[in-house]
Amino acid sequence: MRMYDVIEKKRDGKELSYDEISYFINNYCNDLIPDYQVAALLMAIFLNGMSERETADLTEIMANSGDVIDLSAIDGIKVDKHSTGGVGDKTTLVVGPIVAACGVPVAKMSGRGLGHTGGTIDKLESIPGLKTALSKEEFIENVNRIGISVAGQTGNLAPADKKIYALRDVTATVNSIPLIASSIMSKKIACGADRIVLDVKTGSGAFMKTLEKSEELARCMVKIGNNLGKKTVAIVTDMDIPLGNAIGNSLEVIEAIDTLKGNGPKDLEEVSLCLAAKMLELAGIGDESYCKQRAREVLENGQALEKFAQMIERQGGIPDVIEDYDLFKKPRHMYEFTSEQDCCIEKIRTDMLGISSMILGAGRETKESAIDYSAGIKLYKKTGMSVKKGELIATLYSDDTEKINQALETLKKSLVLGDSVEPQRPLILSYVE
Amino acid sequence: MRMYDVIEKKRDGKELSYDEISYFINNYCNDLIPDYQVAALLMAIFLNGMSERETADLTEIMANSGDVIDLSAIDGIKVDKHSTGGVGDKTTLVVGPIVAACGVPVAKMSGRGLGHTGGTIDKLESIPGLKTALSKEEFIENVNRIGISVAGQTGNLAPADKKIYALRDVTATVNSIPLIASSIMSKKIACGADRIVLDVKTGSGAFMKTLEKSEELARCMVKIGNNLGKKTVAIVTDMDIPLGNAIGNSLEVIEAIDTLKGNGPKDLEEVSLCLAAKMLELAGIGDESYCKQRAREVLENGQALEKFAQMIERQGGIPDVIEDYDLFKKPRHMYEFTSEQDCCIEKIRTDMLGISSMILGAGRETKESAIDYSAGIKLYKKTGMSVKKGELIATLYSDDTEKINQALETLKKSLVLGDSVEPQRPLILSYVE
Repeated sequence: MRMYDVIEKKRDGKELSYDEISYFINNYCNDLIPDYQVAALLMAIFLNGMSERETADLTEIMANSGDVIDLSAIDGIKVDKHSTGGVGDKTTLVVGPIVAACGVPVAKMSGRGLGHTGGTIDKLESIPGLKTALSKEEFIENVNRIGISVAGQTGNLAPADKKIYALRDVTATVNSIPLIASSIMSKKIACGADRIVLDVKTGSGAFMKTLEKSEELARCMVKIGNNLGKKTVAIVTDMDIPLGNAIGNSLEVIEAIDTLKGNGPKDLEEVSLCLAAKMLELAGIGDESYCKQRAREVLENGQALEKFAQMIERQGGIPDVIEDYDLFKKPRHMYEFTSEQDCCIEKIRTDMLGISSMILGAGRETKESAIDYSAGIKLYKKTGMSVKKGELIATLYSDDTEKINQALETLKKSLVLGDSVEPQRPLILSYVE
Repeated sequence: MRMYDVIEKKRDGKELSYDEISYFINNYCNDLIPDYQVAALLMAIFLNGMSERETADLTEIMANSGDVIDLSAIDGIKVDKHSTGGVGDKTTLVVGPIVAACGVPVAKMSGRGLGHTGGTIDKLESIPGLKTALSKEEFIENVNRIGISVAGQTGNLAPADKKIYALRDVTATVNSIPLIASSIMSKKIACGADRIVLDVKTGSGAFMKTLEKSEELARCMVKIGNNLGKKTVAIVTDMDIPLGNAIGNSLEVIEAIDTLKGNGPKDLEEVSLCLAAKMLELAGIGDESYCKQRAREVLENGQALEKFAQMIERQGGIPDVIEDYDLFKKPRHMYEFTSEQDCCIEKIRTDMLGISSMILGAGRETKESAIDYSAGIKLYKKTGMSVKKGELIATLYSDDTEKINQALETLKKSLVLGDSVEPQRPLILSYVE
């Protein structure tokens, strides 16, 4: 087989065989095929697309390019949950404990944040003492003991995806549905779960800006999962607006704890309960209405909160943070941003809001950037709300006043003010099964 | 400017500006843009095309990437001629002397052969003593003295095209009309002529196999030339059948001399007179019928042959070869291939015939291969002719009997025999102005 022929075939709009995809992925990983040939192929894939079969094959081959986590030592059906990433998205911290409290094992590997979106691992590490770098044995033992563990991804998860993603990033071939879908799903598949619930974000704070594209991505990922024998469902949720009010690592953990106590923002609660119920349903514990009821039950009776406390303790963190938020690192500075006029918030450029939080120190501009766990934004006024002159819109937290000044400029630009507001679209926009 | 944005723009089917094309070409030549980004862009160009304006800009920028020959020291309108390459195509050796004999200066830079097609420079070098590596001064002085000089291309002619062609060759992006046209025309433009006559070959021995594609390429090149202020016309000629009977370097020179004597094959004479007349017309010496008449005149009165003898002498060769073919190197072996049956030649796979000649030693498989000037094929029977059992079809010449055996196998495969023949299409298929 020759790489030239593989490029030519895709260039001419033909379907690549499993062997052809395997040939190019495996030889590229072994540095036997140069970047420029793969770049030409990626552009041909971008412009000519990939069939459902090709996309599933690509995903499977990339998943098998590195470690594949074996979760068979954990009894029961393991359901994973993945979000395509948004601003203020701390659902994993709420959903995981709910599902585990219902007796379904949660063995979850998560990533770090980059750019305007945060990552679950960074959020968890804002809890004093908590570690996410677990050995495979610790990870599995934790799930078997208490029903839940959330660990950082190992270094060698789908290395083919990592190498190809880096090339896509510099050749304008990122924004292709089959390439995005196979990239996400290859890591999910390698994580070893039996079934997968996807939270596909849509809107200004999401990777996919339109509902149509988000649904297309959701359908593509659901088909991949099902074709590879991992039953998959997706929920498309709104990310034209940040989820909850807190953006930034410890701020988000505190908001998640509030939610587990029943005092959190209603949008966060709604999406979390919906995702948890879908996970329970996929795990086979009952029908839709039973799963919804069970999820709400463990939230209301405190069992989910208790499960989160157990998880924190088991991973070396101080579980007292749940009662005493003063145990989190405190930011040195804060700034209260109040309204200069009576107005309405017509729209939020949510990605820009995420960037504002990143500037404060909550996120990474490059992979090497350090994170300030206490930095971030509490946003009191969101899209569709009216604001009186002098009323508090947001509080900015950082160790650095200069960063607060910079972040404030970006935050101001992220808010589109006006005289009136349109009715908002629902939070949960569609289900793809 | 960022290369990423240039790729993205072409990926999305938009037109690149002059500055964007210039940016990527010049930075690529200076190794400031990596191969993989250019490979992605080339595939986007392959699939989304280029406008007439973009193609002319690309050509001009590639032409200016290296030496641009200044022919202003030669009086008169300089007309160049270029063939897209075929098997047995020795027209330059006939056309050049005709045009020069009519008083129009011929300052021609030619290339070497590669693969199944031969190159004028290799053919000329089969003349004992003749050199084609001329300094710029010698080249111009020769034209000013005797009206004609044919030299090898300098090392630094359109280096951007060279670098991009090498990348296209390994990324399945060769076969794109705007990329082929700009590649050919960039070298022609850099050669400094005022006007250009193109001989675009079509059929099994040509780069473009169908008349439709050949005409598309011809139109694209004619537009480039005209857009860059170099009046250009193209003739599309048949290459489903080799031109003349000789394939191989000294064999072709001998056939060209025979043609200049009026004893050559009629197909070669027809195409040569047509190209010469077009060159004379472009040089402005008269209208179409006058130019045709003048071309025939200098062929018939021996002035063209005399011009060829002058050129050989001026470039250090022995002009006596014109009268005494024994002065050419002789091959050590020959083999006469005769027909085993009464039959007709229905079709020739002309590229395969070119490869057979290459195997004998007449051509280069790679750029480093050495050439045996006396090797090649004389083909007595061509498409549309009937052959009797025992009749001679072809003679093969080589210094190596083993090569003759191999070449014979390929030659046999190149001939499609049958019981009857279709009428042949005309040699000159269309004119593009």
